[in-house]
Amino acid sequence: MSQKTWGGRFQGDTDKRVVAFTESISFDRRLYRQDIQASQAHARMLAEVGLLSQNEAQEIVNTLEAIRGQIERGEFKFSTDLEDIHTHIEGALIELLGDVGRKLHTGRSRNDQIVTDAKLWVREAIDVIDARLRDVQAAFLSLAIRERDLILPGYTHLQRAQPILAAHYCLAYIEKFERDRERLADCRKRVNVLPLGAAALAGTSLPIDRESVRRQLGFDSIAANSLDVSSDRDFLIEYVFDLTLIALHLSGWAEEWILWATTEFGFLDLPDAFCTGSSIMPHKKNPDVLELIRGKAGQTAGSLQHLLMLVKGLPLAYNRDLQEDKKALFDSHDTVAAELELAEPIIRQVRFRREAIARRMEEGFLDATTLMEFMVGQGVPMRSAHEAVGKLVRLCEERRCRLADLPAEEYETIRPGLGSGVYKVLGVANALAAFRSVGSTAPAEVEKQLEAWTKKLADKPGKA
Amino acid sequence: MSQKTWGGRFQGDTDKRVVAFTESISFDRRLYRQDIQASQAHARMLAEVGLLSQNEAQEIVNTLEAIRGQIERGEFKFSTDLEDIHTHIEGALIELLGDVGRKLHTGRSRNDQIVTDAKLWVREAIDVIDARLRDVQAAFLSLAIRERDLILPGYTHLQRAQPILAAHYCLAYIEKFERDRERLADCRKRVNVLPLGAAALAGTSLPIDRESVRRQLGFDSIAANSLDVSSDRDFLIEYVFDLTLIALHLSGWAEEWILWATTEFGFLDLPDAFCTGSSIMPHKKNPDVLELIRGKAGQTAGSLQHLLMLVKGLPLAYNRDLQEDKKALFDSHDTVAAELELAEPIIRQVRFRREAIARRMEEGFLDATTLMEFMVGQGVPMRSAHEAVGKLVRLCEERRCRLADLPAEEYETIRPGLGSGVYKVLGVANALAAFRSVGSTAPAEVEKQLEAWTKKLADKPGKA
Amino acid sequence: MSQKTWGGRFQGDTDKRVVAFTESISFDRRLYRQDIQASQAHARMLAEVGLLSQNEAQEIVNTLEAIRGQIERGEFKFSTDLEDIHTHIEGALIELLGDVGRKLHTGRSRNDQIVTDAKLWVREAIDVIDARLRDVQAAFLSLAIRERDLILPGYTHLQRAQPILAAHYCLAYIEKFERDRERLADCRKRVNVLPLGAAALAGTSLPIDRESVRRQLGFDSIAANSLDVSSDRDFLIEYVFDLTLIALHLSGWAEEWILWATTEFGFLDLPDAFCTGSSIMPHKKNPDVLELIRGKAGQTAGSLQHLLMLVKGLPLAYNRDLQEDKKALFDSHDTVAAELELAEPIIRQVRFRREAIARRMEEGFLDATTLMEFMVGQGVPMRSAHEAVGKLVRLCEERRCRLADLPAEEYETIRPGLGSGVYKVLGVANALAAFRSVGSTAPAEVEKQLEAWTKKLADKPGKA
Amino acid sequence: MSQKTWGGRFQGDTDKRVVAFTESISFDRRLYRQDIQASQAHARMLAEVGLLSQNEAQEIVNTLEAIRGQIERGEFKFSTDLEDIHTHIEGALIELLGDVGRKLHTGRSRNDQIVTDAKLWVREAIDVIDARLRDVQAAFLSLAIRERDLILPGYTHLQRAQPILAAHYCLAYIEKFERDRERLADCRKRVNVLPLGAAALAGTSLPIDRESVRRQLGFDSIAANSLDVSSDRDFLIEYVFDLTLIALHLSGWAEEWILWATTEFGFLDLPDAFCTGSSIMPHKKNPDVLELIRGKAGQTAGSLQHLLMLVKGLPLAYNRDLQEDKKALFDSHDTVAAELELAEPIIRQVRFRREAIARRMEEGFLDATTLMEFMVGQGVPMRSAHEAVGKLVRLCEERRCRLADLPAEEYETIRPGLGSGVYKVLGVANALAAFRSVGSTAPAEVEKQLEAWTKKLADKPGKA
Repeated sequence: MSQKTWGGRFQGDTDKRVVAFTESISFDRRLYRQDIQASQAHARMLAEVGLLSQNEAQEIVNTLEAIRGQIERGEFKFSTDLEDIHTHIEGALIELLGDVGRKLHTGRSRNDQIVTDAKLWVREAIDVIDARLRDVQAAFLSLAIRERDLILPGYTHLQRAQPILAAHYCLAYIEKFERDRERLADCRKRVNVLPLGAAALAGTSLPIDRESVRRQLGFDSIAANSLDVSSDRDFLIEYVFDLTLIALHLSGWAEEWILWATTEFGFLDLPDAFCTGSSIMPHKKNPDVLELIRGKAGQTAGSLQHLLMLVKGLPLAYNRDLQEDKKALFDSHDTVAAELELAEPIIRQVRFRREAIARRMEEGFLDATTLMEFMVGQGVPMRSAHEAVGKLVRLCEERRCRLADLPAEEYETIRPGLGSGVYKVLGVANALAAFRSVGSTAPAEVEKQLEAWTKKLADKPGKA
Repeated sequence: MSQKTWGGRFQGDTDKRVVAFTESISFDRRLYRQDIQASQAHARMLAEVGLLSQNEAQEIVNTLEAIRGQIERGEFKFSTDLEDIHTHIEGALIELLGDVGRKLHTGRSRNDQIVTDAKLWVREAIDVIDARLRDVQAAFLSLAIRERDLILPGYTHLQRAQPILAAHYCLAYIEKFERDRERLADCRKRVNVLPLGAAALAGTSLPIDRESVRRQLGFDSIAANSLDVSSDRDFLIEYVFDLTLIALHLSGWAEEWILWATTEFGFLDLPDAFCTGSSIMPHKKNPDVLELIRGKAGQTAGSLQHLLMLVKGLPLAYNRDLQEDKKALFDSHDTVAAELELAEPIIRQVRFRREAIARRMEEGFLDATTLMEFMVGQGVPMRSAHEAVGKLVRLCEERRCRLADLPAEEYETIRPGLGSGVYKVLGVANALAAFRSVGSTAPAEVEKQLEAWTKKLADKPGKA
Repeated sequence: MSQKTWGGRFQGDTDKRVVAFTESISFDRRLYRQDIQASQAHARMLAEVGLLSQNEAQEIVNTLEAIRGQIERGEFKFSTDLEDIHTHIEGALIELLGDVGRKLHTGRSRNDQIVTDAKLWVREAIDVIDARLRDVQAAFLSLAIRERDLILPGYTHLQRAQPILAAHYCLAYIEKFERDRERLADCRKRVNVLPLGAAALAGTSLPIDRESVRRQLGFDSIAANSLDVSSDRDFLIEYVFDLTLIALHLSGWAEEWILWATTEFGFLDLPDAFCTGSSIMPHKKNPDVLELIRGKAGQTAGSLQHLLMLVKGLPLAYNRDLQEDKKALFDSHDTVAAELELAEPIIRQVRFRREAIARRMEEGFLDATTLMEFMVGQGVPMRSAHEAVGKLVRLCEERRCRLADLPAEEYETIRPGLGSGVYKVLGVANALAAFRSVGSTAPAEVEKQLEAWTKKLADKPGKA
Repeated sequence: MSQKTWGGRFQGDTDKRVVAFTESISFDRRLYRQDIQASQAHARMLAEVGLLSQNEAQEIVNTLEAIRGQIERGEFKFSTDLEDIHTHIEGALIELLGDVGRKLHTGRSRNDQIVTDAKLWVREAIDVIDARLRDVQAAFLSLAIRERDLILPGYTHLQRAQPILAAHYCLAYIEKFERDRERLADCRKRVNVLPLGAAALAGTSLPIDRESVRRQLGFDSIAANSLDVSSDRDFLIEYVFDLTLIALHLSGWAEEWILWATTEFGFLDLPDAFCTGSSIMPHKKNPDVLELIRGKAGQTAGSLQHLLMLVKGLPLAYNRDLQEDKKALFDSHDTVAAELELAEPIIRQVRFRREAIARRMEEGFLDATTLMEFMVGQGVPMRSAHEAVGKLVRLCEERRCRLADLPAEEYETIRPGLGSGVYKVLGVANALAAFRSVGSTAPAEVEKQLEAWTKKLADKPGKA
């Protein structure tokens, strides 16, 4: 006999290709724990309001616990013949408890049940990602502190622009990931609203107590409109969007370190344990992990588009299309969780090639802007100073020298008196030391930020 | 002479196709007001810290004001020869003020300037969209109150499922748009952080006072890392994502009312003023506005994808690719702003065809679930009740009758005693009256929600 | 000892999280057959040019055959420790053959090997999809012939527009799927170019014979540039695009039949075997398969975006990012293959509700355009006729009657003499009969198309 | 009086916000030439079949010609009050010709008219893009010939892999763009099918002659199903997809040259005319054009997603949503057309820094793979040779030397006799000279390709 949760009105069996096409058990089995947790809360509530006896509720709770054990020990039999995780668990319950099991689905529908399961799952997922983001922040902070005196070229347009502290660079990513964490926290508020009790789409005529379920499952509040619940996937799409931005932050960072690990940049050595080789070229050491992190941003962005297209033009309330949301959700979460897990040790174990960096540090006129600002401080209007320095740079290129190599006379021609003081801001070290604005790469500013983040991350310690 | 803000180091002119390819003035001119506002604050600050005299600052502020007037009166000459809005305004300033104008750009870069302009613009844009969402909520609330006793079929899978109050339906969209407003409010927090003062990427050696600028421009706080600022477009992407979800909510609603306006559904009449006709078929009255609202979700989702791909794999800090962000931003904002502006009067002016709705109200077994729940209340295990009702429905289909038309004996065979009480929950009106769960379509619950939203929207009045 | 295909230059082991992150065996194992096929051709060629002895080549070919048997019988051990399918098969070969196995990888790289495997796979995949498209066309043709006299309302803007033959409707989808087949055929030409022999990126110094491999594997020609081969995924992206358009065609059709299966339209009955029910609402019969077909367009479009983002901004030649292409490929192919497999029997087994359709056939002024054209034929300028019929429709709406119900005088006021002939084009049956343009729904035109397609599909018979 | 092409059945005016929301004239005015061309063909045909007199047709053709002149001289008044380009042109015709003008729209609808205009436009657009692709191919070919003896490092994973000829690199892009041209040619076949005559959705009862129109407009064949025509946007989406792949090819190339223009790579000098500077950093020379080319791939991919979502779930036939297709089309075409126009001179004018390239040419073990293949030629099994070379590379890294610097004894330990011959394949020049496979970077192979492409491009000369 079919164990479908429906079927009374149907003649004949479902085509077996349909079973394979419509099943979700191959992916929603991941929700087994949440499904059981929500069913246990539901059963207890049904007893509270008299729709089950206390004994029945207890039997259900215990049997669900036993089923969870079976699943976790790998003893539970999954089959695509039973559409989804709800059907599997309820089916097992009925098999074990008979009529008592048949009462569990009272006052609820798979439509509110799946949203509840998904919200419980996303809530946990957010917490996992938040902790891993914290770990990556901590790794960057640790790298910043370790390399606090290292100067790097800062880039715009991938052209050398101004000198920056390696620590300042690390702090930039800490800021980006902090915004990601804020977005997750905001998303979590919207996740944490109880859907259960909305039933199929209109609510129920049975005297259920949603407040009891809310309390048991730790939701902040109760969804106010059953039609909305039955059709809503906003929380899930928002989460996948948040993951996508994280993936894109990681993608930019990965690109950067792939560049830095080239022969040409030569800024850093990636640990062998995070690289791979070539099947044909025996000398290769490839930054595969970083490449995959860069590329996998496509996966999350693609999943986001998948979800956006899925809900486009759907009338209220539940439509079966929505079942497809979970593959996109799981793929995106798994991708970003794994990326963060790998980013952390790479960041901790990377080695900067200080000598190679220093060797070319004076290339690229990294002190030109500081020179211009020095002139401004001496009273040259900004635009005129800009023009003057531009010409000096061209002169240097012709002579193949640095700004610091130009004789004082060259500076005097721009403004008398300039020649005497200008050398104290020329050269990368001087240029870096000259910074002073809040949030800049000025050493004192960077120290302040390192302290602030040390305290902030310590207050919310991760595993690191 | 070229009025470019750079050029000292360049030989020869820029290719004129390059000028056309790289210009942004054709779209970033929209930021003129924000650009002037930020420059005025910057000038005042430069005077406070002694980089300008008070007189110079005042001249700059006044002249910028005059330039704004020119732009608003259409007297300002825009040209693609001058790359962007910054260059236009600074160029005009220099033309009018000479050397004093050349000092304005002190201690800042176009890299932080454009982010500041964009954040000021997005901040206003969020407030516009929020107000329009509130108007649409108010329109739905007003419709809900006007039609508070109207019963509609509720759907899942676009199949008739259970009866719902039209007011309950309206409330579902109010909930969705409320979440959109919450997301915008969360996004606004991240927008409202001052970027100015980050300069090109590393900060500046000049003694600027970012706190003064923050205060003048009404930002909540100061961005803590200059590299992050120079490369960050998170705020803009998050805003476009929020717009996309709004567009998708509107898209689902539009689809629904397109269906409801068909000959076949016949639920409502759209106002002539919001429909159009056919050039060949003289009898047509087409729901074009709703169709465009449905379709334009593609525009926002496409723009979101545009932005996501734009930032994929970009190293720090500013890269010229980022210039492309504004077209996607403006298109998405304009689309959603216009959609909301049109949705509001359509919702207010729609007429339900009560007679046509009522005529087919008893079709589709909308009372079947209430019947099942009634049985459960009588002690039939839920799964058994489900099976029994399924069979009754099949019987009705064979006999072409409604559940209420079946004789009591049919109910008695399921469970003795059922036949006597069952008719009080059969029929759509009875089925609807039977609901009672929190958040359901139960009339009392719906009334509670109407009151709550009336109060809530009154507290934050929109134009409605 | 590690069985990696590289490692000589590495110190220490790969981090085990990296192994899990970078492996592709969990999905590229699907390519086992193609990988073996290509390796066998490669081995034979190596013998031809003297890089292997004939005996060695024969041993390799035979052992690969044995490995294929193991895999197909489920006896082969897969492990994520061995990165990919190439490593698995070569590893097994070496285990069985020792040094002879170690010679197989001569003159090739995993970079050209994976493209070869993928192209062989896509070539077969295209043929599968093409055959299924043909089956769906045949199903539509069969439906068209079965229902050749059925008249349906034709829609624009989802408003009733003009009457059409059901057969004409079916033929529209046959045209769409024919274009899909043409696109696949065009894509196949670009797929069918041999990559093997490009080696890692630059070719090889060994005297391989690519022409021999081409011949053995049935490719049309040889890729002319090794760098291009190593970096190229165009063929795969083009295939996924083609799949996406198919999915979108199916999505529109699914939407349409979901509508037609509603209580409100009531045009058709979907076979029970392709519908499912509700866990809470016992009366529901839901078009789940069609809903999933509609929604799954999101999957393919998402996968396409995944791929587009993946290759964005990648320099030549192979980058590890590209490994991610296969998940998107397999998911999209499987989705569309399954959709087509299910569409075919649904189309064949659907039942139109002729009575219900006929009952409302005269609603919606489906004859208005024919009336206008009749006037044009009588010499009324088109725009004037359009205006006149528009007014008659408004009159009918006021009187709640049909155009055919208006008295002759009403027509006479427009143009004397009109009243006598007009009734022969009024009413849906008359309006339909009046069509005559090539490609129209005119019965004779439709018959011509049915004949043409019957012949065309018979010439390329599918399974149907 | 309103000049709408419909309105007879409407009461009251259209809301003026609706006019602004639904208008397309702001973008579809670009189709004026195609619209006139198609209308002229239509008018001539109407005369041929007797629906117009020859005089009337001639008057219409001439007046349309005059209107075209007005538009091209900027004398035509466009207004968003008149929805679209069709209404504008027909309105002007009626104003000039009165009743004769009112006859033009006989036997057609805006539904088939817009598809005809769009197909004529896309057909021309394809030819433009094809010619520009050819120009870019010619530029690469010219660069390849100019730099035919230049050796570059070839990369995989952005790690130095093997030496390649710069000419081989150029040829890789010629291949990619050739595939793009093939895709465009395939798309053009599907574009070149006449839609006109499908009328609104069902054809017409008037005796039009579609074959005449086909011949006049140069279409290859006539669309066979009117419903299909009315709903079909495949041709347009396929074109935007083809543009997206071109944009992605350009994006990868742009990324590469941005890298090559860094201080760190230092491979090439971009012409000043195609770079821009910084408003704050006077020394900067930024590859802005390349950055924008890289980033604009987001625009086309976003537009593609826009279109895909637009058509998702749309029932037959025309829906107003489809109007949105043109913005995405025009944006994508303009973007790619401009990118190609700029790519060509950049490629022609770039200068390789031969000295800087040569200076580091021996870094990165570019000869390692050739060494391994040499060993294979000497009878070492491939996998063993790979392992051995890997160890030699590690030895070199420890000793900070090149493979060619290792003493013969080191090679002798691997296989006696190796030490004597090995030096003839070591060093980049030797390694390059050793290649021989078809399609490889072997100088002779590259010469063959240069000749073949010189002939091929000469046969289809572009502007270059």
